[in-house]
Amino acid sequence: MVTRLSHYFVRTLREDPADAEVTSHRLLVRAGYIRRQAPGIFAWLPLGLKVKGKVEQIIREEMTAAGAYEVHFPALLPREPYEATGRWEEYGDGIFRLHDRKGADYLLAPTHEEVFTLLVKDLYSSYKDLPLSIYQIQDKYRDEARPRAGLLRGREFTMKDAYSFDYTDAGLDASYMAQRDAYERIFQRLGLEYVIVQADAGAMGGSRSEEFLHPTAVGEDTFVRSEGGYAANVEAYETTAPAPIAIDGLPEPVFFDSPNTPTIQTLVDHCNAHLDAPASGIAGPATDGATEWNAAHTLKNVVLALKHLDGTRELVIVGIPGDRDVDDKRAEVTFAPAEVEAATEEDFAKHPLLVKGYIGPWSEEGAILGEESATGIRYLLDPRVVDGTAWVTGANIDQKHVHSLAAGRDFTADGFVEVANVVEGDPAPDGSGPVHLARGMEIGHVFQLGRKYAEALGLKVLDENGKLVTVTMGSYGIGVTRILAIIAELNNDAKGLVWPASVAPFDVHVVATGKDAVAFELAEKLSADLEAAGMDVMFDDRPKVSPGVKFGDAELIGVPKILIVGRGAADGQVEVWDRRTGDRQTVAADDAVAALMA
Amino acid sequence: MVTRLSHYFVRTLREDPADAEVTSHRLLVRAGYIRRQAPGIFAWLPLGLKVKGKVEQIIREEMTAAGAYEVHFPALLPREPYEATGRWEEYGDGIFRLHDRKGADYLLAPTHEEVFTLLVKDLYSSYKDLPLSIYQIQDKYRDEARPRAGLLRGREFTMKDAYSFDYTDAGLDASYMAQRDAYERIFQRLGLEYVIVQADAGAMGGSRSEEFLHPTAVGEDTFVRSEGGYAANVEAYETTAPAPIAIDGLPEPVFFDSPNTPTIQTLVDHCNAHLDAPASGIAGPATDGATEWNAAHTLKNVVLALKHLDGTRELVIVGIPGDRDVDDKRAEVTFAPAEVEAATEEDFAKHPLLVKGYIGPWSEEGAILGEESATGIRYLLDPRVVDGTAWVTGANIDQKHVHSLAAGRDFTADGFVEVANVVEGDPAPDGSGPVHLARGMEIGHVFQLGRKYAEALGLKVLDENGKLVTVTMGSYGIGVTRILAIIAELNNDAKGLVWPASVAPFDVHVVATGKDAVAFELAEKLSADLEAAGMDVMFDDRPKVSPGVKFGDAELIGVPKILIVGRGAADGQVEVWDRRTGDRQTVAADDAVAALMA
Repeated sequence: MVTRLSHYFVRTLREDPADAEVTSHRLLVRAGYIRRQAPGIFAWLPLGLKVKGKVEQIIREEMTAAGAYEVHFPALLPREPYEATGRWEEYGDGIFRLHDRKGADYLLAPTHEEVFTLLVKDLYSSYKDLPLSIYQIQDKYRDEARPRAGLLRGREFTMKDAYSFDYTDAGLDASYMAQRDAYERIFQRLGLEYVIVQADAGAMGGSRSEEFLHPTAVGEDTFVRSEGGYAANVEAYETTAPAPIAIDGLPEPVFFDSPNTPTIQTLVDHCNAHLDAPASGIAGPATDGATEWNAAHTLKNVVLALKHLDGTRELVIVGIPGDRDVDDKRAEVTFAPAEVEAATEEDFAKHPLLVKGYIGPWSEEGAILGEESATGIRYLLDPRVVDGTAWVTGANIDQKHVHSLAAGRDFTADGFVEVANVVEGDPAPDGSGPVHLARGMEIGHVFQLGRKYAEALGLKVLDENGKLVTVTMGSYGIGVTRILAIIAELNNDAKGLVWPASVAPFDVHVVATGKDAVAFELAEKLSADLEAAGMDVMFDDRPKVSPGVKFGDAELIGVPKILIVGRGAADGQVEVWDRRTGDRQTVAADDAVAALMA
Repeated sequence: MVTRLSHYFVRTLREDPADAEVTSHRLLVRAGYIRRQAPGIFAWLPLGLKVKGKVEQIIREEMTAAGAYEVHFPALLPREPYEATGRWEEYGDGIFRLHDRKGADYLLAPTHEEVFTLLVKDLYSSYKDLPLSIYQIQDKYRDEARPRAGLLRGREFTMKDAYSFDYTDAGLDASYMAQRDAYERIFQRLGLEYVIVQADAGAMGGSRSEEFLHPTAVGEDTFVRSEGGYAANVEAYETTAPAPIAIDGLPEPVFFDSPNTPTIQTLVDHCNAHLDAPASGIAGPATDGATEWNAAHTLKNVVLALKHLDGTRELVIVGIPGDRDVDDKRAEVTFAPAEVEAATEEDFAKHPLLVKGYIGPWSEEGAILGEESATGIRYLLDPRVVDGTAWVTGANIDQKHVHSLAAGRDFTADGFVEVANVVEGDPAPDGSGPVHLARGMEIGHVFQLGRKYAEALGLKVLDENGKLVTVTMGSYGIGVTRILAIIAELNNDAKGLVWPASVAPFDVHVVATGKDAVAFELAEKLSADLEAAGMDVMFDDRPKVSPGVKFGDAELIGVPKILIVGRGAADGQVEVWDRRTGDRQTVAADDAVAALMA
């Protein structure tokens, strides 16, 4: 049935919504696709629902082609399965929790690993049942601290989540690759450029993990890639530790006065003004041939507070080269599920041994941090601080520093952590050259959960030898509503949206203009002809609306092909308008269907 | 693509689920359509999701034909709109409430009148925009006290809810009829017998309200209908009050001892043993010509406790003829949004004037109930207790009753209420004859909300004269998952499900049996042929499963047409099996596709 704008439920707005931070949000609201209901929660109007349905259909087709079957889980789920895997607590404030009239705890599921695992446990018992891949397209919920950017980071959002079940590692690899390949086809069909990067498995546990990122300067994720083919999310980048250096013969540490040098820059300036030039064994990695002191010679000690799941608060100190900063996202992933906060004045007040601005692992009285620590605080080092490297760092005395302080001799670590930021030119861990930094938006995520969930929930099957083996799983997600927003983000101009044909709400937008009945009758006929030819047609049949308003709406709504039936109608002439190129061609009415089908 | 049972995600179960109370629940679980996640909350497996999709598709097509456009609202909605209409409180314990990390209140929507109203208010401003009908197919939530009967009364369930918007009453009538007609077509396509009955608008407010009930002895709703065409839900049945009787000349009330007569039956027995025969003016409606005392001569006074939304508890006494009982559902609707409970001993203890088993509106000392009440308790009468009717009833003294107590002279009501049960033979209020009682299951509900929601939320448009008028609305619901369960409830036999073709998960179920490769090859070929002919095919290609198990699964799953390819395959013979009739016909393999398409 031809959809008539005179009756259709769509209203375009002249004004941008006040809360729109990004183009997709602004245009999807203005063009009548979505409407905000609460922070990060939207209603879908008919146009939006049609586009969403098309994205979902492409995903369904590729899931079917990959051998996955569709199921549907409730959004409202009981606490117990999530309790069994520890995620009820791990999610912290990030999920919506509620209880029913009997006081039983429930959540609005942010993801469904647990219940998929239990479903398969319920129904399957033999290796013969495997492999299995099942998926759903479903609304999920996360109580984001700052829902923003419209559909890009909502609190209610639609996801396709698939799960694979195998009983061998090779099986998991095959299932993983089938989903990964399906993702490539999905993004190709959606016209979405992507980079596949290694990702940190994070709170999900598991081993192999890759993200599909759409590279864009406005992306919220940072990733690195080398010319040689390495690509990883910054959270997953692994620092290459240099070889340790022999400690024998290294100079002894030297304490020195350094008034008013609480920052790395003031410290470096002080060194250049008052110390001899740096030399191997005195400061910095051995290969450093610098003649001036610089930030890389210094060891920066940052106090972080970890908020653990059990409510306890732990201070840790991370020591990183002074030319780097703590990367919040890398720290978050490193310390998950604990939350990372900056240390407060109150924290410092409890540890008088720590002199702010002058913290170091060692004082003239002995170890402050690390082995034989006087503070009891864990000291975690960047992987570059290998044994035998020497540093300028704080002396734990106000206005004092120390140089020639050697790792492995004068101080030790309680562990090594990946919290320092990654910078342009850092080496790819696979030796494929220096990395470049880029930004992207996550559009998909595939990963091998391994046996974590199956173990926690007791999913085992009998193998060929009648032995019970734990199943190994994969989890594969695509944010449907997020992808729709990204497509809108990429396909627009100053006038409005410009949908790719694969997901456009209609195939063609017929606009009748003027007051001439001939034009409206011809438009009516051509709409019917186009529909008969298999096209989904929206017909702007509004009788008393000016051509300017109609064209403006057509541009805002963004159907890729527009047919204008106006003054030329009496002479059998119509115009075919390509929304993307702006190209308008006059054609004979009789050729219009063929021209639009082309 | 042909769906192969060797890989498909379906497992039939030999045992009935322990918690299954009804056939649909039992079979949908056993045949692998759904799986319980929590009380009243289910996951949909591939077979179930396919059937659900088919039901939804039929609904969508008829909604489109009725000129309604599809939208989609979130399940998670903020409190404010529901607060504005008073439903946040009215729903009591019946909904799921939660709050986000900032403490803002939300609910899981049980129905969406408020947000549909606000959406139209947001976008529309003129009578020219109307009429409008929009709908969604969406998961809804109600925290049922006793979720039961599988999908028939769940806590998460899928509904199609449509809403119409008009600015004239005539417009609302037209929109209402369009939906009502669409419902008739939907139920006809689904093969579901229905009766359209008048319904009480209940907590939804509004005027015209009709339910579509599927008549079935196991239905949870009772309805009445007359030969003359009247049909109503018992909650909506309106009692016809008899004409009042002249009070002048009626005998004076007579108090009498009635030891051990706390129940209607013991009282009637006492009257028959100790009093003269009943006569007009002494007891019962004037037209009563009974020569023996019976329950209809007595006035039964029932103490109910109303739990109001504001938390207060109010006692009320309802006076109904002694041959009737309080119908809980009618009382519930009458007193909504207050909840109705039985009075407790504690309630009685607070009102010493009320003598349990001997309650009446009047004592020898004066009025206990009604005008000049000594108790302060509201006294609400059945509409049949009109002025001039005389009754045997309690005297508010232990072991004492009174007869010849005349309504309108000796006692009065604080109001009239419809709480007495309806019985076979009661008159239809439209004069179309006596009613018969029947049971049914609600499958749809259409009603005119009128201006209640538009007024509460300020939805107005400018009319032809530039005057702001409040919009009038309708609300139209079909329980998708409930209908699916009812279809399953009606279409099964001892062996399993028997789907009607319109909603069957597959068009044909091909079963290859035996160990002969010829049979499997032929089944493979015929499956492909059937698919090429446009049929959706499930192929039981499991290699080492016995014919008995395969046939049992086919019967349990209930695809209406089954094709058996077995021993006859070598001779080019196959069997076409009609699941409903059990009829099995041998046909030549070459004719199989044609036979199954027939």
